[in-house]
Amino acid sequence: MRILGVDPGLTRCGLGVVDTASGRRVTLIEVGVVRSAADLSPHLRLLAVAEALDDWLTRLKPDVVAVERVFAQANVRSVTGTSQVAGVAMLAAARAHLPLALHTPSEVKAAVTGDGRAEKAQVQEMVRRILRLDAAPRPADAADALALAICHAWRGGGTGSAVRAQYGGADTLPRSTGGGLTPAQRAWAQAERSARRAGAVAPGR
Amino acid sequence: MRILGVDPGLTRCGLGVVDTASGRRVTLIEVGVVRSAADLSPHLRLLAVAEALDDWLTRLKPDVVAVERVFAQANVRSVTGTSQVAGVAMLAAARAHLPLALHTPSEVKAAVTGDGRAEKAQVQEMVRRILRLDAAPRPADAADALALAICHAWRGGGTGSAVRAQYGGADTLPRSTGGGLTPAQRAWAQAERSARRAGAVAPGR
Repeated sequence: MRILGVDPGLTRCGLGVVDTASGRRVTLIEVGVVRSAADLSPHLRLLAVAEALDDWLTRLKPDVVAVERVFAQANVRSVTGTSQVAGVAMLAAARAHLPLALHTPSEVKAAVTGDGRAEKAQVQEMVRRILRLDAAPRPADAADALALAICHAWRGGGTGSAVRAQYGGADTLPRSTGGGLTPAQRAWAQAERSARRAGAVAPGR
Repeated sequence: MRILGVDPGLTRCGLGVVDTASGRRVTLIEVGVVRSAADLSPHLRLLAVAEALDDWLTRLKPDVVAVERVFAQANVRSVTGTSQVAGVAMLAAARAHLPLALHTPSEVKAAVTGDGRAEKAQVQEMVRRILRLDAAPRPADAADALALAICHAWRGGGTGSAVRAQYGGADTLPRSTGGGLTPAQRAWAQAERSARRAGAVAPGR
């Protein structure tokens, strides 16, 4: 299974792709950061992220997209921008017909370091070890995106409530209580069901 | 000038399009609400909004997109979802090569009712009067989207700081300090400059 992790941010958006095979072994495929100038109009900053995501999705063809769940409490001043980027990443996953997973920062820290309150440096060091790299990926946003992908690789087969809840939302096919599904949503749901039958993106694997 | 107003929300996203001619006269072109079921996966809810926006942009060809500026303080529990939708709307504007304006709720209320703290019912009634409608658009999200478009129509030619700041961001072409412009951003900027020379989307008009 190939996982694209996204650490959303307007100034720096971390992207990291890992492959997971049997056991807990995960391999780095690509890591990077989308940057945009602070004086750029906000919608153009979002466009920069969206275009990078489209490029990565097309080139690297992940099976699932994992995005950090943004908490309003975390940083009130940056939460709107961060959430805007998260929305753009979630939309990119939907448009690519991929399942989406959201993991909280503490879930990611706990999965990678064993401690939900680990420091940034600890996370970076564990990402380096887990992926057998010579040096930790920089900046921290890049390491965080990889940590998110690793978290999904390991929790995906476990009891991760966030993961299950997300998959559950797509699993139990949406009732058309509020305006129903658009044609693309129906196509997406159909594609996901087919892919699951084929074992390609089976949740909880 | 044709303005698309977007009142972002995951459960209900209001969309309203008005045309503005000389003076303060504005005319309703279309109004609606994108709904999605609460049990739908969040990325599919965003997809529903994105597809509706693409449809409206293609069919109605607005000159500018005005989105409500989300404040983290306003409602901590819903701010991440609302910001995600705002991000999707901002991205849709960028992809359509349209300028984006953000207006705060109090700017909208002040523009439409003269009182930045007006009640929802007041805003709805003023939208009805301004657009010469028999009944106020329902639900409130639809009226709010129109109020936003009206606010932009009237403030666009005035001293609206939010509007100027947004336009300014695109006006003073972004420096490539942080990774530069993508090809699409350059194309966008070029298109906007050309359109301004042609008088099509002149800011502050």
